[in-house]
Amino acid sequence: MQEADSGVSSPTISHRNTASLIRHAGPHFAAAHLDGLMALYVNPSHGRAVTLPISESRSQPLVDFVRCSYLGLDNHPSIVEGAIEAVRRYGTLHWSCARTRLNFAALGDLEDALSDLFAARVITYTTVLAANMSALPLIASGVLTGGKKPVMVFDRYAHATLAFNKPVVAEECEVRTIGHNDVHALEDICRQNETVAYVCDGVYSMGGCAPIQELRDLQERYGLFLYIDDAHGISLFGERGEGFARSQMPEGLGERTIIAASLGKGFGASGGMLMLGTSFQEEIFRRFALAHAFSASINVAAIGAALASQAIHRMPELGVRQKALAEYISLFDELVPTAQAGSRLPIRTIVVGDELAAIGAARVVLDAGYYTSAIFFPTVAKGRAGLRICPTAGHTTAEVRGVSAAINRALKG
Amino acid sequence: MQEADSGVSSPTISHRNTASLIRHAGPHFAAAHLDGLMALYVNPSHGRAVTLPISESRSQPLVDFVRCSYLGLDNHPSIVEGAIEAVRRYGTLHWSCARTRLNFAALGDLEDALSDLFAARVITYTTVLAANMSALPLIASGVLTGGKKPVMVFDRYAHATLAFNKPVVAEECEVRTIGHNDVHALEDICRQNETVAYVCDGVYSMGGCAPIQELRDLQERYGLFLYIDDAHGISLFGERGEGFARSQMPEGLGERTIIAASLGKGFGASGGMLMLGTSFQEEIFRRFALAHAFSASINVAAIGAALASQAIHRMPELGVRQKALAEYISLFDELVPTAQAGSRLPIRTIVVGDELAAIGAARVVLDAGYYTSAIFFPTVAKGRAGLRICPTAGHTTAEVRGVSAAINRALKG
Repeated sequence: MQEADSGVSSPTISHRNTASLIRHAGPHFAAAHLDGLMALYVNPSHGRAVTLPISESRSQPLVDFVRCSYLGLDNHPSIVEGAIEAVRRYGTLHWSCARTRLNFAALGDLEDALSDLFAARVITYTTVLAANMSALPLIASGVLTGGKKPVMVFDRYAHATLAFNKPVVAEECEVRTIGHNDVHALEDICRQNETVAYVCDGVYSMGGCAPIQELRDLQERYGLFLYIDDAHGISLFGERGEGFARSQMPEGLGERTIIAASLGKGFGASGGMLMLGTSFQEEIFRRFALAHAFSASINVAAIGAALASQAIHRMPELGVRQKALAEYISLFDELVPTAQAGSRLPIRTIVVGDELAAIGAARVVLDAGYYTSAIFFPTVAKGRAGLRICPTAGHTTAEVRGVSAAINRALKG
Repeated sequence: MQEADSGVSSPTISHRNTASLIRHAGPHFAAAHLDGLMALYVNPSHGRAVTLPISESRSQPLVDFVRCSYLGLDNHPSIVEGAIEAVRRYGTLHWSCARTRLNFAALGDLEDALSDLFAARVITYTTVLAANMSALPLIASGVLTGGKKPVMVFDRYAHATLAFNKPVVAEECEVRTIGHNDVHALEDICRQNETVAYVCDGVYSMGGCAPIQELRDLQERYGLFLYIDDAHGISLFGERGEGFARSQMPEGLGERTIIAASLGKGFGASGGMLMLGTSFQEEIFRRFALAHAFSASINVAAIGAALASQAIHRMPELGVRQKALAEYISLFDELVPTAQAGSRLPIRTIVVGDELAAIGAARVVLDAGYYTSAIFFPTVAKGRAGLRICPTAGHTTAEVRGVSAAINRALKG
């Protein structure tokens, strides 16, 4: 989510203006809904296809390019069977109690397996949203940085579920927002402050990524604390699917890096997780993280699915899927020019500019049988509306060619 | 969650001090962990029993009184089968995309069924936490109160997942915290301000409830907006399990009442929900609620389980279970005196006072084969530590008698 205004902010500047957001985005949401582009309710079909009910007796087949199941794992038979078997074995879907109290033994098994897989201390959450809102206040408190409260610096494109927490952490420490990937501004802040924590996405949901190596350099030189939401990078990179951020840190996370990631998206199950570097961090999170103490765990189906997915992450199949994804992305790049062309990242955005023109283009593509996301403020900046498309390893060559042709036709029209 | 300090607060007063919380609660968490009372990893057994692995070959049977499955539905065969069948039918557990994009058709069916069941417009969320953080900023924006930003008033015992959002909403409107159930203070604020929104729990997680009728009176007289988190009240009250708050509003929610509730706890499935009163509210939430636009939906297993549970809510079985719960609560009240004795609410707290004494008492009860919650700051106020126990319709008379005897022995010891 991008902010309406840019530049450095201080705790005294308001981070939110919901009424203004609704006023600005309302007409475009209305247009997109009218055009049948928003909130589709569909049934699964084969592969990446779905069927959209039109009437009692008719439905429209669509190939979906909206979902972020980058490796095509969300309908993997082992993962589906893992979910079913776990619910059957446990005879329940969910226990309502805080994780500080009672947990399914299988959840312990899952967190052990994920910790081994990613060489980190992994704690699961119901969503990445819950992981982020749990982690950021603990970082702000200074308890993870030797008792010294950090200056918390947010990338201005940091995901909405990160940016939401700015006023919360601003009650405990100084908060600043810097330009997207502005490493120089970040270094200036590191020079001027003893303790600094940086909050960013690994892979950005609207394209692009964090400069992990440069951030690690700042960490080495200034002790910078890093909190990286790698929801869109998990599973896609690394021999074991460690993800975009973790796979660039072969030496381990250490005391000053925490990575959030999804158990959905590339991973193919359901939920979120945090990768921590130390046992001290783990103890703090298992006692005091808001969602750990005052909300629920992932349900048994999600536990079973994630256990199956982590097993796939240890097999050659993972590499085969990573390679297939890379090939489909390359094919798409050959056919449709975007700012992200040539990148290994899976998200492509086509800028149209005008909001209504972007919505119209998405409708033309939908009529051709392909569902893509019409993106506009607040998802992207005003006047930078367009289409977002997520090729996956589960698509076919014909589907990637088909959606590319439909997009090119829509852009000409 | 109770705050460390009381009294009226303004947007300029900090609501959080995580470092201080960790400093104060840390030793008690450590003691409770050492005593084997926190974060148990167990396997399900029959009824409300679980087994705690002790070694490779041995495990301890325990009767659980921690989980909030008040009607004993969390291991109901129809709900378990509903979860399994939905995953099998859809061939996937979870789709990673915002609800503003793509949804399972079954999720639409579920929200229609819940809307019909509770005579409200129901939207589901992965957790009540996600529902709360989605709703409160929309209320603060004033868009639900005719464009006029409200003064947002929080009960000081409002759940942690509500209180978390105070600094967020304080960026958009004035925020105050009043004493627990202090209707007079609330009326004073209503007299002095044109638009006021009150945020509270329906049934409080540590005992007690909101004075719904008095709040509705204030609503009638001053147009007070009500946001009630009834996570612990859902399913337990009302002919169709509308819950503690909704069942006291037979005339409907209207334009100024929103109720949050759980799809877990009494309901017996997994997730959270909001009951809205108007189509305008529904449209705003389906477009702009943070978790709707930037997080995931409940997974397919949760959809299937909730569909099965809402069907049970229409059957005589619901009333049978509500009655069984009431009888076990009465039996417990006969055997163990608490401040909540005689109440229809399901949560009982036994105040011990000293934190270590409460932890010791919980250990004695555990040794007798019953798992209860040792509660201490920040869950309750400092020096008000004790035990929390949740009898359910799934317990047996022998189990309720057994835990009561164990508690009485522990309190004498």
